[in-house]
Amino acid sequence: MSKHIPYKIYLEESEIPKQWYNVRADMQNKPAPLLNPATKQPVTFDDLTPVFCDDLVAQELDDDTAYFDIPDAIREYYKTYRPSPLVRAYNLERALNTPAKIYYKFEGNNTSGSHKLNSAIAQAYYAKKQGLKGVTTETGAGQWGTALSMSCAYLGLDCKVYMVKVSYEQKPFRREVMRIYGADVTPSPSMTTEIGRRINAAHPGTTGSLGCAISEAVETATTYEGYRYVLGSVLNQVVLHQSVIGLEAQTACRKYDIEPDVIIGCAGGGSNLGGLISPFMGEKLRGEKDYRFVAVEPASCPSFTRGKFAYDFCDTGKVTPLAKMYTLGCDFIPSANHAGGLRFHGMSPILSQLYHDGLMEAVAVEQTSVFAAAEQFARVEGILPAPESAHAIRVAIDEALRSKETGETKTILFGLTGTGFFDMTAYEQFNDHAMGDTIPGDDELSGSLSELPKVD
Amino acid sequence: MSKHIPYKIYLEESEIPKQWYNVRADMQNKPAPLLNPATKQPVTFDDLTPVFCDDLVAQELDDDTAYFDIPDAIREYYKTYRPSPLVRAYNLERALNTPAKIYYKFEGNNTSGSHKLNSAIAQAYYAKKQGLKGVTTETGAGQWGTALSMSCAYLGLDCKVYMVKVSYEQKPFRREVMRIYGADVTPSPSMTTEIGRRINAAHPGTTGSLGCAISEAVETATTYEGYRYVLGSVLNQVVLHQSVIGLEAQTACRKYDIEPDVIIGCAGGGSNLGGLISPFMGEKLRGEKDYRFVAVEPASCPSFTRGKFAYDFCDTGKVTPLAKMYTLGCDFIPSANHAGGLRFHGMSPILSQLYHDGLMEAVAVEQTSVFAAAEQFARVEGILPAPESAHAIRVAIDEALRSKETGETKTILFGLTGTGFFDMTAYEQFNDHAMGDTIPGDDELSGSLSELPKVD
Repeated sequence: MSKHIPYKIYLEESEIPKQWYNVRADMQNKPAPLLNPATKQPVTFDDLTPVFCDDLVAQELDDDTAYFDIPDAIREYYKTYRPSPLVRAYNLERALNTPAKIYYKFEGNNTSGSHKLNSAIAQAYYAKKQGLKGVTTETGAGQWGTALSMSCAYLGLDCKVYMVKVSYEQKPFRREVMRIYGADVTPSPSMTTEIGRRINAAHPGTTGSLGCAISEAVETATTYEGYRYVLGSVLNQVVLHQSVIGLEAQTACRKYDIEPDVIIGCAGGGSNLGGLISPFMGEKLRGEKDYRFVAVEPASCPSFTRGKFAYDFCDTGKVTPLAKMYTLGCDFIPSANHAGGLRFHGMSPILSQLYHDGLMEAVAVEQTSVFAAAEQFARVEGILPAPESAHAIRVAIDEALRSKETGETKTILFGLTGTGFFDMTAYEQFNDHAMGDTIPGDDELSGSLSELPKVD
Repeated sequence: MSKHIPYKIYLEESEIPKQWYNVRADMQNKPAPLLNPATKQPVTFDDLTPVFCDDLVAQELDDDTAYFDIPDAIREYYKTYRPSPLVRAYNLERALNTPAKIYYKFEGNNTSGSHKLNSAIAQAYYAKKQGLKGVTTETGAGQWGTALSMSCAYLGLDCKVYMVKVSYEQKPFRREVMRIYGADVTPSPSMTTEIGRRINAAHPGTTGSLGCAISEAVETATTYEGYRYVLGSVLNQVVLHQSVIGLEAQTACRKYDIEPDVIIGCAGGGSNLGGLISPFMGEKLRGEKDYRFVAVEPASCPSFTRGKFAYDFCDTGKVTPLAKMYTLGCDFIPSANHAGGLRFHGMSPILSQLYHDGLMEAVAVEQTSVFAAAEQFARVEGILPAPESAHAIRVAIDEALRSKETGETKTILFGLTGTGFFDMTAYEQFNDHAMGDTIPGDDELSGSLSELPKVD
């Protein structure tokens, strides 16, 4: 007889993972190395340590170690908001009248409102361990900045956040959350950096960009004694830290004899999807189990489905190393859409390699259908999802409806990365039927893709 | 040896209470009955059923039944967001360097952001059971309106919310959350009711009041076929439903051998405090255990500490029955403060009687000290509290600091009713050092208290 599955599976505190899992160790084709943009040679430990913390660089460059111990101090912090629940979507199943079983791993029950805290506390911890004074970063939508502010407040580190000016002005509430946690939040471009002053002079009245905010954060980290720069997605180290999501999900599945057939997550830079699928992908790579994996991206920023697998800069300011990834070109500016966390031209090199090797699928969805799924989900499941997370909901519902057609009793697992409390302007547009969809034209994409840096 | 206490105690789904506990059954001095304002006689079942659902009226008037079964459908919904965690505030204890043990029951992990959902789903359920089309209510800050919208969406009931016009305009995000859940949100005073049209004609441009919104919601409930009015606090039925908070806390305490010495909660209308303390108060009333109970109210709206124990209207519009309670007079308008949920002139008749009988203490605190406590708490415990909840944090911290002075190893339990994601304007004022305190003068209080209705 199968076990009774509660609405929410909470693991014990003692079941919080003691190690992160590094999926690269089980990949036959490793993700391509980051390249120094000047020399086009693979970056070395010494290339990166002026910008990033030493321990994090070691994690970034290590393709072989399968498990990294989670330091006690990080695990203690995890205990304040983890384990996160694995939820059985009984009410959604009923509403869809589907034979499919639907589960979601919910990462939104913390004040950052997302999974970002899993890596923020790790990165802040290593900075503290290295005896640094503080860290710098950029934020657009604000979830990463919030998570980092919370982590720094907890550890007593200084936190300097460059917030894209348009977000600083349009999302004052996110800014105030960061300030409550003691972060120093500066609208970017600012007059506090060389590059900020230069951009302000060249483009008076500019409202900024993520690329510019990255440049300012990196400049500040390398200018001030005792600071390093930290980043919330794309990097291998971030996927490593986020593996706690997948490891907990895997433990819960084993405990309750749940066997997912398909695992779905939204993909911007890849931090949540990479973390969720890592241990399951490990099983697939080792030939122990088989799963379908589906990355969901916005049709307005379709890196996987319409991008190119090539070396590119991670930022529009072209100050970062080159990463081999699915990219739309670092000059690509996605049209306005409300999932700020998915508006990134590139993609995690790990996920890019897995997708390239046919180990994962990808699908692009339009935001009006995403918000319709969010509304349907909220009304029966209670939780108001973040627009980013709702991309995964859209595809999970579509899979469940296909099950209904075929009569297949599929088990679906998706990542519900966060809550939408700070996205109400988007929901208001949706409520008012004032939301549209914009999909980049082929000419637009070929334009930005023609500018990819030459390698070899 | 004492048991290891995890950061967060999550009960099993099966440990969600199967019955609500009615503290009135164990009170020697029962709360005084509601009076019909016209006859000054105790209200009858038939007086109330045109306005409230039948089953809820029965609960409202029942001072004797100690336990009410929680209907299965309500318990199923509870399973989607309960049990709520009982959290050990290890990090706060460390930060305060206190020998006190601090626990909080956290009710904020649901989209309403508060405990309000516990009664909203119950009231919506009884409306559905009675075959009604929908319910009407008023909302100020918006937590109650959100909780009711969620509950109605789940059960397929129509939900009409009158939102005080100033909140409707200044808190558009709360409004949009309710709309996503399908509620019909109308700024009050509106042109949809007789009383709304009258007030708009008499006071062109008025931004409304809770009293006026109540009147419009009641008029709509009694005008439209198949509607009833529901209320989120003050009433006995609400304290009954909210007893799930205390019952879960009590189960968790017993499971882990936790013996609270003092139990603290914020008090506006009394719904959260009444629910948290009910089962513990029952033990005290039956002579089984002793506890200190502390109600925390804002110094700007000090019903317990500076009010009068007397019959008064529950609303400023004077359309409700009279309740015997601690009141500042229904004409009292609290000066601007940021804990909207605590800006009520009266108090639950149950809590009022308990306080009058010396079974509970009360303390009034100023909002600047409340926000300082909120910031301190957020930085170490992670959770950004609602301003209302932070009143309880203030007093819990003060108790813990007293423990530190005396060396007493006291155990403190407080209710953390919700999150502050929709209160960032208040936090911004605090961040900018632009927040002040206003305490009503004695003349102001004696003015509003002199207008109490004559009874006997």
